[in-house]
Amino acid sequence: MRLVTYRTHPAAAARLGAIVDTQVVDIAALGLAAGVPLPADMLEFIDLGPDAVRAASELLAEYAGRWPVGTARSLSNVDLLAPIPRPRKNIFGIGLNYVEHVAESSRTLDTSKELPSQPVIFSKPPTTIIGTGEGIAHNARLTQQMDWEVELAVIIGRRAQRIDEAAALEHVFGYSVMVDISARDCRRAGQWIYSKGQDTYGPFGPCIVTADEISDPHDLDLWLTVNGVEKQRSNTRHMLFRIPHLIADISAGITLEPGDVIATGTPEGVGAGRTPQEWLWPGDVVVACVEGIGQLRNPVVTV
Amino acid sequence: MRLVTYRTHPAAAARLGAIVDTQVVDIAALGLAAGVPLPADMLEFIDLGPDAVRAASELLAEYAGRWPVGTARSLSNVDLLAPIPRPRKNIFGIGLNYVEHVAESSRTLDTSKELPSQPVIFSKPPTTIIGTGEGIAHNARLTQQMDWEVELAVIIGRRAQRIDEAAALEHVFGYSVMVDISARDCRRAGQWIYSKGQDTYGPFGPCIVTADEISDPHDLDLWLTVNGVEKQRSNTRHMLFRIPHLIADISAGITLEPGDVIATGTPEGVGAGRTPQEWLWPGDVVVACVEGIGQLRNPVVTV
Repeated sequence: MRLVTYRTHPAAAARLGAIVDTQVVDIAALGLAAGVPLPADMLEFIDLGPDAVRAASELLAEYAGRWPVGTARSLSNVDLLAPIPRPRKNIFGIGLNYVEHVAESSRTLDTSKELPSQPVIFSKPPTTIIGTGEGIAHNARLTQQMDWEVELAVIIGRRAQRIDEAAALEHVFGYSVMVDISARDCRRAGQWIYSKGQDTYGPFGPCIVTADEISDPHDLDLWLTVNGVEKQRSNTRHMLFRIPHLIADISAGITLEPGDVIATGTPEGVGAGRTPQEWLWPGDVVVACVEGIGQLRNPVVTV
Repeated sequence: MRLVTYRTHPAAAARLGAIVDTQVVDIAALGLAAGVPLPADMLEFIDLGPDAVRAASELLAEYAGRWPVGTARSLSNVDLLAPIPRPRKNIFGIGLNYVEHVAESSRTLDTSKELPSQPVIFSKPPTTIIGTGEGIAHNARLTQQMDWEVELAVIIGRRAQRIDEAAALEHVFGYSVMVDISARDCRRAGQWIYSKGQDTYGPFGPCIVTADEISDPHDLDLWLTVNGVEKQRSNTRHMLFRIPHLIADISAGITLEPGDVIATGTPEGVGAGRTPQEWLWPGDVVVACVEGIGQLRNPVVTV
């Protein structure tokens, strides 16, 4: 399933939907029509676990093309929000997780040129999250070095505490796209949260593709353009620490919970690594894409 | 008010209470008896803002000493949880915020001996939070350098986005104590979240004292003992960046929301700064106290 959080107009409540062709099918409404109770909220749906995923999948297959009245609408008539508009804790971000990006970072930032021996973890508060179409806030009082980073995001489906790599992928609910916006001049004593954690610095979405539909999360192209010019293009096979390693590593000390999001790091091509360096400014448009998931399109706006 | 989250037995729901002398008065039950609806949950109470604080204070004054049946019980008959058992995002931690601690850290850790020019911010996930009496999990597979840090915690009461220092304290709901447990050997590429973010690494409580009862948050003694031996003793007047500065600084880029917690940094006397260095081990007992708020007592346990 390609799950979204959507609303029909700006004042409407956010609801859980599935994209089928050019339509959004409302999961709770379809469940109601079929006599199968299903929630209207993405986090509640994730909490319910594999049974809910299976039930929703079966209903979508059963009713395909003959949606009960009021359960489907054209994708062009709805607003997509971030698939989890309000995570229950900070996003886990992974720094320096693509080999070429480690090299470009060491040339221009304060990071080591050695490959990290363990995942480098930081966090982004829930207030960073925006959906596709929403503005990335450029605050010129705080930054003159706003940078882009396209990433594959992993959404946890099952509580993971001290999980082995071999079992790690069983704890994944699905995958999405995140842009890890970074104000390079807002690092402090090396800590990245102010640099990466400002409001709107986490474009996220446009959907969550459930894990059953991604045959290999380590073979996905990902790319990013600024004003239509390609800046990043790579493939998730170049991750230094792969998803099972990240889940095993984090969960050894920090319990992962349903709905948690891990942004798995960015490949080379960030603005800080270019000659001359390039930064985002109001009026720019950032488009980020991961193969098989979808595309985020966010303008940079003055705040 | 001295607000707590408590339960009457391990299977009971957590409830909001106020400590009055040696009793816990249930806020929602007292409200019900008085015909004034008040919530049973700390975060819901904080969300309601100053009117709820005033209403609860007035009821506590009105009924003092003649509590309606079922609204008060002896403090010795309840379990105190962390006052906010499950924050809605990671705790904001402030590093290197006491002058003498900057010096001791630079001698033995990888931090600069220069005083930071801006607050150094990191985060601790909600899964770090434990209440007084709960065990701090020592995982010998991950750390041989578990350290203590007593801190004054600030709880935000009102949304703060780009707030001036002059108005910052109006956004504070109250104050509490946090121990920022740190595995010094789990820093990675300088990032502190794995070092400070492991499960149980955030003893928090025992209560939140509302801001109206703390006349000067920058004149509070704070201290910490390990197995009865004093390791830290200082006063919040020695903070490098004071609370209004911290709120103004964070909220310039990161919106603070009701229920957010800021741990304001630790004074000198941590284990890493001692000669020889000292670390926490299973069987140790950490007691942390901030004047006028209360005392946390947490054993270190094997996991």
